[in-house]
Formats: sequence, structure tokens, C-alpha cells
Amino acid sequence: MQMSARNQLPGRIKKVKVGNVMTEVIVQVGRQELVAAITSGSAKRMKLKIGDQVFAIIKATEVMIAKE
Amino acid sequence: MQMSARNQLPGRIKKVKVGNVMTEVIVQVGRQELVAAITSGSAKRMKLKIGDQVFAIIKATEVMIAKE
Amino acid sequence: MQMSARNQLPGRIKKVKVGNVMTEVIVQVGRQELVAAITSGSAKRMKLKIGDQVFAIIKATEVMIAKE
Amino acid sequence: MQMSARNQLPGRIKKVKVGNVMTEVIVQVGRQELVAAITSGSAKRMKLKIGDQVFAIIKATEVMIAKE
Amino acid sequence: MQMSARNQLPGRIKKVKVGNVMTEVIVQVGRQELVAAITSGSAKRMKLKIGDQVFAIIKATEVMIAKE
Amino acid sequence: MQMSARNQLPGRIKKVKVGNVMTEVIVQVGRQELVAAITSGSAKRMKLKIGDQVFAIIKATEVMIAKE
Repeated sequence: MQMSARNQLPGRIKKVKVGNVMTEVIVQVGRQELVAAITSGSAKRMKLKIGDQVFAIIKATEVMIAKE
Repeated sequence: MQMSARNQLPGRIKKVKVGNVMTEVIVQVGRQELVAAITSGSAKRMKLKIGDQVFAIIKATEVMIAKE
Repeated sequence: MQMSARNQLPGRIKKVKVGNVMTEVIVQVGRQELVAAITSGSAKRMKLKIGDQVFAIIKATEVMIAKE
Repeated sequence: MQMSARNQLPGRIKKVKVGNVMTEVIVQVGRQELVAAITSGSAKRMKLKIGDQVFAIIKATEVMIAKE
Repeated sequence: MQMSARNQLPGRIKKVKVGNVMTEVIVQVGRQELVAAITSGSAKRMKLKIGDQVFAIIKATEVMIAKE
Repeated sequence: MQMSARNQLPGRIKKVKVGNVMTEVIVQVGRQELVAAITSGSAKRMKLKIGDQVFAIIKATEVMIAKE
């Protein structure tokens, strides 16, 4: 399966914080941590847990640039 | 200036592809490449060019998780 | 590969309109047409063309509700 | 009222799951289910409930394409 | 028609910059200018032009907070 | 620090509603109220509270146009 989303970063789940409707997933990607806010329904369906090998997927139109 | 966006990844611009309305910016973040689609107006105002030290900024609600 | 994105709608590509940076893809999903604006880089990499069987993928946080 | 959002899918609410800040709304659109994560403030203001005729609205820049 | 999108700001179109796939629309909202990047298909369908009374619509999950 | 996000609206926090994973922040921008849904982690890290001077930041690709 190919995805049009340009950013597909491999990493490992470091933390899962489950709320009623939304769940926060922290993924270690190289030296960076990435935070995803997904529905708790998805987190449950995919049985996401600490240590899982995953990809953080981000559409290019959602990425901003900051410069000092 | 602090930003609520949870994901702020430091990198260096590798490529800038300018279109009429939208511009694609490729940022090298560690071993990963990140692609951002921003308005050409922003790219011009910030004078983005190859080699610039920048941050790729992504709101947590825009990050998805994929798992094999 | 499982995706956290809650909305994964199967369809067939009806039209591809290629721009310099962005490309518009129209997908027939049942009786509905769905329009996606993705980067031209993705459209080229995936060799998207009329007739392709694809999925339109949408994160739940991107869906709004309207009511009369 | 016309909306620039290209995707306006008519359906009927199948489930509303209310959280403190966010609410999940499941809409039956033809043979598909669509999931929306909106603020609980909006769900309350619009009095969304099972059976309501609604539209799921999605901006084209939020739609991705996947292909096998 | 009621929309779940929490932010619906009334204004007047100040500029329309049409590209092949995407169009930039600048809306004067009070003393602020708001910039929208929508598909050129929508801009054409709605016949958007300078002086039009419009609303800029933004989903709450798309708004970030910055603080000095 | 310069941001590519085209919309940076100065205002003052009027309300903060904290949930487990997500927090709603209402910002008074001129005569308008803007609602942001951010992670509770960000709200805590930035110590957001009523009366804070902030900016509401919105990427142009997230803004839609509605017209009567």
C-alpha cells in the first residue's frame, strides 16, 4: 500500500495516554519525539502500546516552516 | 515565543520548488526528509533558500500512526 | 499496514489535474465524488491516473459536520 | 450558503460519543461510515443526536490517496 | 445551515490570486487580514472576487496558540 | 522567529477548558472569539491561563471560505 502522504517517519511508541475520545501517542523517531493526537477508537483498534514499531504519517500541507 | 504545536523538528532546507500559489520545501531532519507545502507568499516573505536552518512545525492533531 | 486514520473510502480515480506543486485528484466513491489536493510529487511517485483503484484517506479531526 | 470545502457528503448520524473537550460523531454516508472528531461545544450547540440528517464536510487539502 | 466549525469570521475579499490547482484568497476581517488557500475549482464555482462578503471558516483543531 | 503560517492573530485568552488529552482555548481577537483545540500537554507546558496575551496561529491551507 502506497500513501500520498509525503512524510512517513519510522519510530517506536514511547507513551500512550488514553482519553475518552482522543488519545495522545508519543513516538521516538531518531533523536526526536513526535506527538500524535488520534481518536481513542483508532488506538484501541490498532492495539497501540509502548514499544510498537510504527510510522508517524504527516501530509505535506500540514507542515509549517519556522526560521529564526 | 512558545508555540502550542507539539512537533518542532530542527533541520536544514534541501530544496525549494516554487509554484504560483504553493511552494514545496524539503527539509533534512536528521536522517529523514520532511516535505512541507506552504504558500509561495510565505516562502518569499521568509526568503527561504537551500541551506537555511529551520524548524518543521506540525500540530499533534495532524499526525497519524501506521503500523504493520 | 494499519492506519489510525478513521476514514478510508474505496473508489476509483476519475480525474487528475496536475499543477506545478499541487495536484487535484477526483475519486468516485459510491455515488459521491471526493476531491483530494495532494503534492504533484506524490501523484507522480504513485503514478496516479484515471481508473486507478484507490482509497481516499481522511483523519477524523479533519471532518466537520453541517446541519440544516 | 456556499462553502469552498469541496467534499460535502450527505448522511445520517449513527453515533455520538461525548467527551469533555472533544466529541466523536459517526455518520452513515451511503454504505460508508465517516468519523468526525469535533469539539463538544459544537456538538452541544448543534444538538447533534442519532438520526440527524447532516453533511460531513472535508476540505480537499485534508484528503490523502492510498493505492495498493 | 449550521456548521460545527467553531470559527466563522465575517469579512470582505481583498485579493484573489488564481493558480492552476490552488488559489489564494485574502479576506479583510476587522483590522486583520486572513489568508486562505483553497482549490481553484472552488474559487471558480463560487465566483469569488474582490469585494465579496464572505466568512473565513476554521476548525478549532486547526488553530494553534503562540505566546511570548 | 518567523513562521510560515500566514495567519497570526493577536488576542487575549478568555477561557481555558482542560480535558484529559485535549484542551479548548478561547481567544478574544478584536471583536471576534477564536476557539483552539490543542493538546493538554501544550496548555500545561505553556501555562496558558485567562488574560494571557497570545497569538492564534492558522495555516492558510486550513482556512475555508463561505459565501451566501
